[in-house]
Amino acid sequence: MLILVIAVVVRNVTHRLITRVVNRAGNSTSISGRLRRGGPSTDGIDILLNERRKQRAETMGSVLRHVASIVIMGTAVLTVLDRLTIPIAPLLTSVGILGVAIGFGAQELVKDFIAGMFMLMEDQYGVGDVIDSGAAIGTVEAVTLRVTRLRDADGRVWYIRNGTITRVGNESQGWSRAYIDVPVAYDADVPAVRALLGRVAEDLWNDPEYRESVIVEEPAVFGIEQISDTSVIFRVSAKTLPSRQAEVARELRMRVKAALDGAGIALVA
Amino acid sequence: MLILVIAVVVRNVTHRLITRVVNRAGNSTSISGRLRRGGPSTDGIDILLNERRKQRAETMGSVLRHVASIVIMGTAVLTVLDRLTIPIAPLLTSVGILGVAIGFGAQELVKDFIAGMFMLMEDQYGVGDVIDSGAAIGTVEAVTLRVTRLRDADGRVWYIRNGTITRVGNESQGWSRAYIDVPVAYDADVPAVRALLGRVAEDLWNDPEYRESVIVEEPAVFGIEQISDTSVIFRVSAKTLPSRQAEVARELRMRVKAALDGAGIALVA
Amino acid sequence: MLILVIAVVVRNVTHRLITRVVNRAGNSTSISGRLRRGGPSTDGIDILLNERRKQRAETMGSVLRHVASIVIMGTAVLTVLDRLTIPIAPLLTSVGILGVAIGFGAQELVKDFIAGMFMLMEDQYGVGDVIDSGAAIGTVEAVTLRVTRLRDADGRVWYIRNGTITRVGNESQGWSRAYIDVPVAYDADVPAVRALLGRVAEDLWNDPEYRESVIVEEPAVFGIEQISDTSVIFRVSAKTLPSRQAEVARELRMRVKAALDGAGIALVA
Amino acid sequence: MLILVIAVVVRNVTHRLITRVVNRAGNSTSISGRLRRGGPSTDGIDILLNERRKQRAETMGSVLRHVASIVIMGTAVLTVLDRLTIPIAPLLTSVGILGVAIGFGAQELVKDFIAGMFMLMEDQYGVGDVIDSGAAIGTVEAVTLRVTRLRDADGRVWYIRNGTITRVGNESQGWSRAYIDVPVAYDADVPAVRALLGRVAEDLWNDPEYRESVIVEEPAVFGIEQISDTSVIFRVSAKTLPSRQAEVARELRMRVKAALDGAGIALVA
Amino acid sequence: MLILVIAVVVRNVTHRLITRVVNRAGNSTSISGRLRRGGPSTDGIDILLNERRKQRAETMGSVLRHVASIVIMGTAVLTVLDRLTIPIAPLLTSVGILGVAIGFGAQELVKDFIAGMFMLMEDQYGVGDVIDSGAAIGTVEAVTLRVTRLRDADGRVWYIRNGTITRVGNESQGWSRAYIDVPVAYDADVPAVRALLGRVAEDLWNDPEYRESVIVEEPAVFGIEQISDTSVIFRVSAKTLPSRQAEVARELRMRVKAALDGAGIALVA
Amino acid sequence: MLILVIAVVVRNVTHRLITRVVNRAGNSTSISGRLRRGGPSTDGIDILLNERRKQRAETMGSVLRHVASIVIMGTAVLTVLDRLTIPIAPLLTSVGILGVAIGFGAQELVKDFIAGMFMLMEDQYGVGDVIDSGAAIGTVEAVTLRVTRLRDADGRVWYIRNGTITRVGNESQGWSRAYIDVPVAYDADVPAVRALLGRVAEDLWNDPEYRESVIVEEPAVFGIEQISDTSVIFRVSAKTLPSRQAEVARELRMRVKAALDGAGIALVA
Amino acid sequence: MLILVIAVVVRNVTHRLITRVVNRAGNSTSISGRLRRGGPSTDGIDILLNERRKQRAETMGSVLRHVASIVIMGTAVLTVLDRLTIPIAPLLTSVGILGVAIGFGAQELVKDFIAGMFMLMEDQYGVGDVIDSGAAIGTVEAVTLRVTRLRDADGRVWYIRNGTITRVGNESQGWSRAYIDVPVAYDADVPAVRALLGRVAEDLWNDPEYRESVIVEEPAVFGIEQISDTSVIFRVSAKTLPSRQAEVARELRMRVKAALDGAGIALVA
Repeated sequence: MLILVIAVVVRNVTHRLITRVVNRAGNSTSISGRLRRGGPSTDGIDILLNERRKQRAETMGSVLRHVASIVIMGTAVLTVLDRLTIPIAPLLTSVGILGVAIGFGAQELVKDFIAGMFMLMEDQYGVGDVIDSGAAIGTVEAVTLRVTRLRDADGRVWYIRNGTITRVGNESQGWSRAYIDVPVAYDADVPAVRALLGRVAEDLWNDPEYRESVIVEEPAVFGIEQISDTSVIFRVSAKTLPSRQAEVARELRMRVKAALDGAGIALVA
Repeated sequence: MLILVIAVVVRNVTHRLITRVVNRAGNSTSISGRLRRGGPSTDGIDILLNERRKQRAETMGSVLRHVASIVIMGTAVLTVLDRLTIPIAPLLTSVGILGVAIGFGAQELVKDFIAGMFMLMEDQYGVGDVIDSGAAIGTVEAVTLRVTRLRDADGRVWYIRNGTITRVGNESQGWSRAYIDVPVAYDADVPAVRALLGRVAEDLWNDPEYRESVIVEEPAVFGIEQISDTSVIFRVSAKTLPSRQAEVARELRMRVKAALDGAGIALVA
Repeated sequence: MLILVIAVVVRNVTHRLITRVVNRAGNSTSISGRLRRGGPSTDGIDILLNERRKQRAETMGSVLRHVASIVIMGTAVLTVLDRLTIPIAPLLTSVGILGVAIGFGAQELVKDFIAGMFMLMEDQYGVGDVIDSGAAIGTVEAVTLRVTRLRDADGRVWYIRNGTITRVGNESQGWSRAYIDVPVAYDADVPAVRALLGRVAEDLWNDPEYRESVIVEEPAVFGIEQISDTSVIFRVSAKTLPSRQAEVARELRMRVKAALDGAGIALVA
Repeated sequence: MLILVIAVVVRNVTHRLITRVVNRAGNSTSISGRLRRGGPSTDGIDILLNERRKQRAETMGSVLRHVASIVIMGTAVLTVLDRLTIPIAPLLTSVGILGVAIGFGAQELVKDFIAGMFMLMEDQYGVGDVIDSGAAIGTVEAVTLRVTRLRDADGRVWYIRNGTITRVGNESQGWSRAYIDVPVAYDADVPAVRALLGRVAEDLWNDPEYRESVIVEEPAVFGIEQISDTSVIFRVSAKTLPSRQAEVARELRMRVKAALDGAGIALVA
Repeated sequence: MLILVIAVVVRNVTHRLITRVVNRAGNSTSISGRLRRGGPSTDGIDILLNERRKQRAETMGSVLRHVASIVIMGTAVLTVLDRLTIPIAPLLTSVGILGVAIGFGAQELVKDFIAGMFMLMEDQYGVGDVIDSGAAIGTVEAVTLRVTRLRDADGRVWYIRNGTITRVGNESQGWSRAYIDVPVAYDADVPAVRALLGRVAEDLWNDPEYRESVIVEEPAVFGIEQISDTSVIFRVSAKTLPSRQAEVARELRMRVKAALDGAGIALVA
Repeated sequence: MLILVIAVVVRNVTHRLITRVVNRAGNSTSISGRLRRGGPSTDGIDILLNERRKQRAETMGSVLRHVASIVIMGTAVLTVLDRLTIPIAPLLTSVGILGVAIGFGAQELVKDFIAGMFMLMEDQYGVGDVIDSGAAIGTVEAVTLRVTRLRDADGRVWYIRNGTITRVGNESQGWSRAYIDVPVAYDADVPAVRALLGRVAEDLWNDPEYRESVIVEEPAVFGIEQISDTSVIFRVSAKTLPSRQAEVARELRMRVKAALDGAGIALVA
Repeated sequence: MLILVIAVVVRNVTHRLITRVVNRAGNSTSISGRLRRGGPSTDGIDILLNERRKQRAETMGSVLRHVASIVIMGTAVLTVLDRLTIPIAPLLTSVGILGVAIGFGAQELVKDFIAGMFMLMEDQYGVGDVIDSGAAIGTVEAVTLRVTRLRDADGRVWYIRNGTITRVGNESQGWSRAYIDVPVAYDADVPAVRALLGRVAEDLWNDPEYRESVIVEEPAVFGIEQISDTSVIFRVSAKTLPSRQAEVARELRMRVKAALDGAGIALVA
């Protein structure tokens, strides 16, 4: 009896310890999270981050508490059986043989859980982020310790085991870059075309619909990116808010086409 | 004798415990299941989901009960043999050597079962869903703990081991997206074409045969998706009910072609 | 002596148990087998399925009986040696070192056997089925626990280890689908072509040589499957008996060509 | 001394047992071998098969006898050392550490031997067969338990480890199929071309140089295998003796070209 | 009690030892770091390197201290339990079974940490370097023991597990090379073109905006790099400061085009 | 002391045994080696083979002697320590932990050595042979138990670990085959072209510079190897001495071109 | 105390033994190194090789000394603890569990070190060699036991783990080969072109700037390397000093072009 009482006490103490450690870890990563996102941290984002942090802390705390419970209570039960002079060797043997057989097969499962735990702790991505997980690209719909659920652009829902994700590309952190390549004829007037593209970039930057609400830096025109016997390729590039690059690229294409048409310059293959 | 009686009692208690836990898990995931499917949850779908939930609960309960039976009865038999002073070391040894030899080879089997169990628990897909399992794309015909049976568009039946599925794309959850790319000549009137495509999209949305019964959101016309020296490409996109995207895309192609023919605009390569 | 007598008795009881369990399993899967094949289950097919079931039951029963014999007799021999106070530790050691050395290398073998056993139990394919095993596509000529023997269309015989087959596509279950793509000129009369193709499909369905004896559903004409600046592609699709799709596709090509020639419509690239 | 005498007796008994079992296995697989090759089993082939069977039986018997010798004599030596109260623990330890270190590296070797043994037992291929082993295609020159030696068409000699062969395609069993694709103009007279090709096929079949001595079934003309805007493709197919397909395909090309030239029909791209 | 006191003392001594060793290692690698970067080591860079060195030393010291703490305190606790005659076998058993199950799954984690530790110790890259990690190319934003965080040119943030990086290419160490290929017509005057390109290279080298502040060596013109029936390809190459090669290549293209236009020489495909 | 004396005696006996066995193995494989090379075995080749055989025997004997020495002396040392009542358990433990840690990493090394040993024993290739090892093709410069050193056609020296070579193609055994494909116009006179090529083949065979000193069999002209709408492809094939095929193919091209030019027949694409 | 003294003595003896063995190994491989490099071994090269040999000997000696120290001192400490009747079982247990957990993850590390050690011992490459490591091609800048550091042609620095290098191609040993392919028109005068190319090769060989100081053998003109309907391809090949092949190929292209221009022969596609 006493053994069981002690076990319960130890378990409770361990649980409280885990809760406190996890909470502290949650708080500290939330600071780095705020820094990482850059820009003025409005209250709305702060609250969102707070919630994600709390969820993370809870998920991990719950896992650790379960593991601790299993270890402590298992030890207690074995000790009690031992004291009652019930032979536990056969039990251990039969569990052991099964355990090894299953252990090999379960390593992928453990791998998934460990990957999921670290991924959460490092806050690599959260619900709503657009990520490239290798197997599929899409918006995160749910994150659990074992799998990540995405929805791609076609509406397909992807379940991806966390352990199979060796690298993740997150398109929703900080900024994205939109760029378009503009090939003009080899004998085009290079400085004139460059100036024309520069004016398009400046106009976009001065457009109140885009400035800072979508584009975060004045667009730039790079020089001759490539050259062939028939064409000279310029590149126009714009830094945008995360995941807005497709929209900005479409606007840039529209404006560059209009400007080139106005100046009587044709694109070439 | 007493040992065997106790073993049977323990087994029964464990069985009942497993049944209760599994049922509770089934109930809770069913709620998330309803949420995940989105839209008004009619009674028909509720019943379908209920049945899938029950099947899941039964499958997993049965597995866990078998494992528990083997562990408990094996321990009991060994204990009895031990009490009868029959030496069990040789038995354990011969089983052990065979066990290790088989254990290595069986890890793939265990992997399949574990993957299948979690896949069921997370309700990643069910009979009737159209999924992309990597090895094959098709309609799920049967789901067991070890293999998933699909039938692809050619009528071929695929047996895929669950452990080899590292990511699954499910096309039957929530919505799908149909889109078609419309390339017109470089010197076409960009705003006019865009307006024309917008009217096609609006007509489709207003067609009672499609509105909400097939298409769940007003179709949209994106701007210049790509640009080359001979063509400008627009994209028309429509959100549809799951797995209806091919049908909607065909209808869109038909309507866009008619509209372009009416306006005397040709597609270009 | 007594030990050996008991061992033989235990072995016989175990053998009889295995035989009974395997037979029962065989009977139950045969029912699901009948269901899976769909359609009216004539007596001929019933007999065929019965035979496959019996073979399966025998194969697996034989394997399990061998394993049981080895375990029981091995234990008995060790126990006898132990009672005769012959030291068995050296024997176990020398077998153990060799066993571990071989165990690692033999895991592929065990994997093949396990895969073969489940494949048989689940009746994924049998002699005469046309399957796609990944490594080769062909008609199954023999199925053993370790390898599957196929013959492909060129007459090449393939031996494929069961453990290397992670997914199998069986073309001989239920139905197959034949489809042909018909590209016509961009400015062709879309409804007229569709109607023409519809008449071809209807004629094929009404042809007593094909209806139900080969084709199991009225062929369908899908709308515009693809569209380019020069062509519009229609698709004609027909559900056929298993493995008859190539034959039906050839007939469809013949009839569609004749109909298009009659209507003066040309195919385009 | 007595121990060693007993060990030698046990070894001899085991050897004789192995020899008998292996011989019996050899006989039984030879029957299946004869069946598998199909056709009238002439005496010459019977003798050839008998020899291959004997070689197989010898190879495997020798392997098993070696393994049995090592186990039995090793046990005997350890027992003797034990009786002489020489401590064998250090010996076992130093062998054990080395054994584990080597065991991991040797698993590929064991894998090769196991694969070779089963390959021989199942008679997947023998000296003189043309096989596709994945790594190389060629004529088998030698088969050992560890490697298979091929010579490819360029005269290159390939050594392939048996364990790396996951699937083997044997072109020398039963029959092969030769086929050629004949693309004619889209507006060619389909039935006339088909009849012409049919006559070519019939002529080849009636040619005493080919009938049955090379070709084992009347060649067939399949219908429209593919169709495009410029061509209609027919396929002519002939079942030949094993590994004779290249020769028959060349003859078919020669005859089809002559027939088409005679009828004034041109091939198209 | 005494045991715990000794454990704490041992722990503290070990901690101090680790700190000293790590610091010394940090100092020595910093020297090689300075050498590796080449060029005059200004004070600014020295400070930067010093800071990176200190961070590295701290990271590794902290890891080693944690490991030492766990080993020492774990031993102490077990010894205490042992002395109190509390049976620790059950505890070890339950931890052991769990440990093995987790150990297999955790090997990837350990691999990541080991890779990270050595990567830090060898100073392969640091925050701000542009690296090619195989999975993604970008600027390093953060380096931890488990993952490296990059931001690529599109603004996508990549999390890459250190253990999956088998080779790293660092573009920010020492120098980079810019080169452009100049294809001229086959019948062009080879020595004249070479002289012309040589003048372009010399002009760039003499331009105060580039000399030594961007380009670190006089650009060179290689001879005929490739030759075909229509063109002769020359290569112009310039050694630049790290990560400045794109900029220099654009300037070179601009100048080469101007020079060729001036001399009336056209590029060819 | 006595123990050490006995150990040395056992070691010497084992060494002599190994030497004798290895020598015998060397002799027997040399016979098969001679057979394998085919053709009249001149004395020069015999001597070369003898030397390779001796080297092989020495290499392997040396390896086996080292292993035997380590096992025997290690056992002796442990036994002595044991008799001196020095506790060897701690030594074994510390060696064991290190051993397991290293054993996993060393398995690739062991794999290389085992592969090298068998490769030598089977005489798959020797210094001077041209081999295709998968990773590189070239002339063998050195063969050790761990790596094989090749020099490829560009003069690059390749070090390839023996364990990574799963299949080897040896171009220097027996014979090689040179062949060239000759595409002529579709309407060319097929029998005339075939006769012309036959004459070229006969001339080459009758040329004393090539007959038997380079070419080992009369060259053959295969029939129509491929056919298209514009061309008919013939193949001329010649069996040559090992590694002489490139030279013969060049001569064949020269002669075929001259013959076709003489007959006014052009090649076609 | 005595135990520690003995341990220190044993350690020192072992260290001295290792130093001597490693030095001897260094001396012997240096001889083979000199032979391998071919050509007259000038004193400069001898000194360079001597230095590389010494570095190798030191690196390996240091590693072996560390391992020996750890084993010997670890054993001594455990023995002391054992004599002081301090229970070492708990320590071993806690270290053991951690050790196994880490051992799995560390196997890649051990693999890297073993690969590095053998690579050094076999002197596969050294600082300054140009190597193809699979992952990257470049000049070796540093070689450590764990990683090899290269700098490629773009100035990128590559860190490659030694264990991931399964084959290495070293371009700096002995000689390299430069070759260029010269395609001329199908109806060109084959012997004349061959003679012309032969004169170019001879001129290059007689040029004192190249003869023996760069090119080590008279360049050769191979016959018709390839033939098509429009072109005949000749190949000119020259053996050069290591890593000088690009330079020689450029010179050859320059001279061949001049010669062909002089003779009025054009290249063809």
